[in-house]
Amino acid sequence: MIYLDNAATTKTAPEVVEAMLPYFSEYYGNPSSIYAIAGKSKEAITKGREQIANVLGAKPEEIYFTAGGSESDNWALKATFEAYKNKGNHIITTKIEHHAILHTCEYLEKERGAKITYIGVDENGVVNLDELEAAITPETILISVMAANNEIGTIQPIKEIGRIAKEHNILFHTDAVQAFGQIPINVDECNIDMLSSSGHKINGPKGIGFLYIRKGVKIRSFVHGGAQERKRRAGTENVPGIVGYGVAAERAARTMAERTAKEIEVRDYLINRILTEIPNCRLNGDPVKRLPNNCNISFEFIEGESLLIMLDMKGICASSGSACTSGSLDPSHVLLAIGLPHEKAHGSLRLTLSEEITKEDVDFVVEQIKAIVDRLRSMSPLYEDYIKKQQGK
Amino acid sequence: MIYLDNAATTKTAPEVVEAMLPYFSEYYGNPSSIYAIAGKSKEAITKGREQIANVLGAKPEEIYFTAGGSESDNWALKATFEAYKNKGNHIITTKIEHHAILHTCEYLEKERGAKITYIGVDENGVVNLDELEAAITPETILISVMAANNEIGTIQPIKEIGRIAKEHNILFHTDAVQAFGQIPINVDECNIDMLSSSGHKINGPKGIGFLYIRKGVKIRSFVHGGAQERKRRAGTENVPGIVGYGVAAERAARTMAERTAKEIEVRDYLINRILTEIPNCRLNGDPVKRLPNNCNISFEFIEGESLLIMLDMKGICASSGSACTSGSLDPSHVLLAIGLPHEKAHGSLRLTLSEEITKEDVDFVVEQIKAIVDRLRSMSPLYEDYIKKQQGK
Ligand SMILES: Cc1ncc(COP(=O)(O)O)c(C=O)c1O
Ligand SMILES: Cc1ncc(COP(=O)(O)O)c(C=O)c1O
Repeated sequence: MIYLDNAATTKTAPEVVEAMLPYFSEYYGNPSSIYAIAGKSKEAITKGREQIANVLGAKPEEIYFTAGGSESDNWALKATFEAYKNKGNHIITTKIEHHAILHTCEYLEKERGAKITYIGVDENGVVNLDELEAAITPETILISVMAANNEIGTIQPIKEIGRIAKEHNILFHTDAVQAFGQIPINVDECNIDMLSSSGHKINGPKGIGFLYIRKGVKIRSFVHGGAQERKRRAGTENVPGIVGYGVAAERAARTMAERTAKEIEVRDYLINRILTEIPNCRLNGDPVKRLPNNCNISFEFIEGESLLIMLDMKGICASSGSACTSGSLDPSHVLLAIGLPHEKAHGSLRLTLSEEITKEDVDFVVEQIKAIVDRLRSMSPLYEDYIKKQQGK
Repeated sequence: MIYLDNAATTKTAPEVVEAMLPYFSEYYGNPSSIYAIAGKSKEAITKGREQIANVLGAKPEEIYFTAGGSESDNWALKATFEAYKNKGNHIITTKIEHHAILHTCEYLEKERGAKITYIGVDENGVVNLDELEAAITPETILISVMAANNEIGTIQPIKEIGRIAKEHNILFHTDAVQAFGQIPINVDECNIDMLSSSGHKINGPKGIGFLYIRKGVKIRSFVHGGAQERKRRAGTENVPGIVGYGVAAERAARTMAERTAKEIEVRDYLINRILTEIPNCRLNGDPVKRLPNNCNISFEFIEGESLLIMLDMKGICASSGSACTSGSLDPSHVLLAIGLPHEKAHGSLRLTLSEEITKEDVDFVVEQIKAIVDRLRSMSPLYEDYIKKQQGK
C-alpha cells in the first residue's frame, strides 16, 4: 500500500502510541482529582501543553485542548461572535476555508444574525489582501483565514493578515489544522489571536485538538460544564490523547526542517513527472507557497472518483479533495474559487505525501496514474471530441 | 493503592486498549475516505455504534459520537433550544444535575433568552415528580433529568419522567453519564428522546462520548463542519476511541448483572460498617435507589478535603464530590439540594467502587477512615464543643 492521503489523516506514530499507553490503564486518574495517581495525569497534560506551546512560541496557558480541529474552529467563531457582539457582528473569512469554518459561518448568519464576508482568492488560491482590507467595517470583530489550504496546499500570507487585523484592532483567527507542524508558525510574529489545530494531521491521535487563545482575548466557553482548561472547556481531559498530541507536536517541530526538505523534493519530482508526462492536466494551488507534502492536479476529461477507485485497486490511497465531503457530488468549493470550471474541478486528484514516501514510490504511482488516465480518457466521449478537434477533423 | 473514585473516571480495561491499538498505526484511514484501508475504519465505527445501540435498545443510526459527556449535554440542550424555539423557550431540569447541564442552562438563560426551572429533590435526592409536572407550561420544550447522580448515586425515576414528558409532548433528555452500563436503560421503555454518555466512566477511553438522538427529534449540529455522523457532528471520527467505547459498552452490559450484584454487596458492607462504627455520620443519597458502586457519607465536624489528603497518604483514592469542581471551596450543590447544611456538606466523602474492590479492601479502608476521622475530630474545636454539650458540661 502507498498511502498518499496524509492531509485526510496520518498514521499515529508508534512513539506517540507508546507515550500514550501508560495513561489508559496505569495512570488513569482524573486530572482534577487530588490524590497521587491523578497528579500523574495532571503532570502529563501540563507537559503536553508545554510541548505544543513551544512549537508556536505561545504560553502553555494559552493552549486549550479540544476534541479536534472542527471543535476548535466552532469555538473560535461562535464564542468570538458572542463575546464581541457589543462591538459588532461582522466576520471576514475566505471562500476556500474548510467546512468547519464555512458551515459555522452559515450557522452564525442564519441563526444568530452575523454578517459574513467571504474574500476571494487568486488563481493560485492566495487570499486577496486588498479585498480583505477593503472589507473591514467598524462592525468587524474577527478575521478568520486558514494558514494553509487542505485541498490545494496553498499557504496564506498570515503574517500580513495578522498585521492588517492588528492595525484595525480586529481579532485574527487562523485554522492551522493543515499547517501546524508542517510549516513554522509563531503566534507573536503573525499577530495570531486564535489558532486551531488537530492531532491526527501530524501523526498524533484522532479525537484531540487545541485552540490557542491569546491572553486577553475574552472569549468564553463553547462546551460549558466543569472547571477544566481554566474554566474554558468543560469535560474530563483526554489524557492519553493530550500526551500523544504533545509528543507528536514536539516530534513534528524537531523533524520539520529535514522532513519537509525531503518532502518538497519528492513532491516536486511527482508534480513535474505528472505535468510533463501526462497531457491536459494542471497543478492546482501555488507552485511555491505550498505545503511541503501537497500535490493537487486536475486531469481534463476525467472523473476524480473513477481515478481514485482505480488507484485504490493498485494499492494507492489518494483523495479527490477533502475527506469530509466525500460522497457528495458537488465539486470542491476551493477549486471553484480558484476559477476552475465544474468539469475540471471534478477531475482533480490530491496526493499528500509523508516522510516515508520515496521517489521509487512516486515512480510507481506516476506509472499507474498514466495508465489509468489513458484508460479513462479512452472511454470518454468528451476526450474523443477533443482529439478530433485537435486533429482538425 | 485502592482506587475508590470510579465515578470520577475508571481504568481503561486492558481488553479495550487492545481492541483500540490496531486503529492507531495500522488501520489509521479516515473513515470518510474511499480506499480499502479507510473501509476498515468505517467498519470499526459501525461496529462500535451497534455495540452501544444494543445496550440501550436503540437503532445504531440514533447514536452520535461526541468527545464526552459534557459535549453531549451541551449539544442536547443548546440544539434543542435552537431547534424548538418556535414552540417555546422553557426547559425543566433539576437542582442536582452535573455542571455540564447546569452551566449550559445558565448560559442559555443569560445569553439566549431561555427560561429554566430547576426542580427540587427530596432528602434522598429523588426528583419531585409532582413539582416537575406542575412546572410544565405550553412553552416547555425539554425536560432534562439525569438518570443517576454522580455525587450521591441516587437513581431517578426516568421511566415516570419519560411518561410525563411524552404525555405533554415534550422532549426528554437524560444525562446517563453515571448510569449507562451500570444500570439497565432502555430508551423506548423510558421514552427517552436524547441520552448522554461518556466512555471513560465505564472502563472505556477518555475523550469519547455519545449522544443518543431518537429518530424524528429535529435537533441540528452543535459542532458544524464536515458531513460526519450523518451531517450532525463534524470532525474526523475518533476511530480508536469509538472502537474502545464499543468494546467497553458491550463488556459493561454483558457483565452488568454479576458485577453489580457483587458491587452492591461490597457497597452495603462498606456503608454499614461506616454507619455503625463511626458516630455522627450519615449516608447521602437513597439507600436503595442507588448506583451499585456509590457510597457517599457526611462526617460531622470534619473537612472533606483533609480527609481526602490523609486517605491519599494511605494509598486510598477518594473524592469529596465531583471531580470537576475540586479546587473550588463551594459546598456541593447536590448536598445542599438534599438539605444538608453547609458544614455537613463540607465534610462528605464519596467512595465509588469497581468490581475489583473486595471486602478485605473495604476492611482496610474503614479502619483508615475511622482513624483519620478520630484524628481530625480531635483537632476540631467544634467537635470539642459538641462533646462537652453531650456530657452536659
Ligand atoms: C452526571 C455527569 N454528567 C456529565 C459528566 C461529564 O462527562 P465528561 O467529563 O466525560 O465530559 C459527568 C462526569 O464528569 C457526570 O458525572
Ligand atoms: C483546514 C482544516 N480545518 C479543519 C479540519 C477539521 O479537523 P478535524 O476533522 O480533525 O475536526 C480539517 C480536517 O479535516 C482541515 O483540513
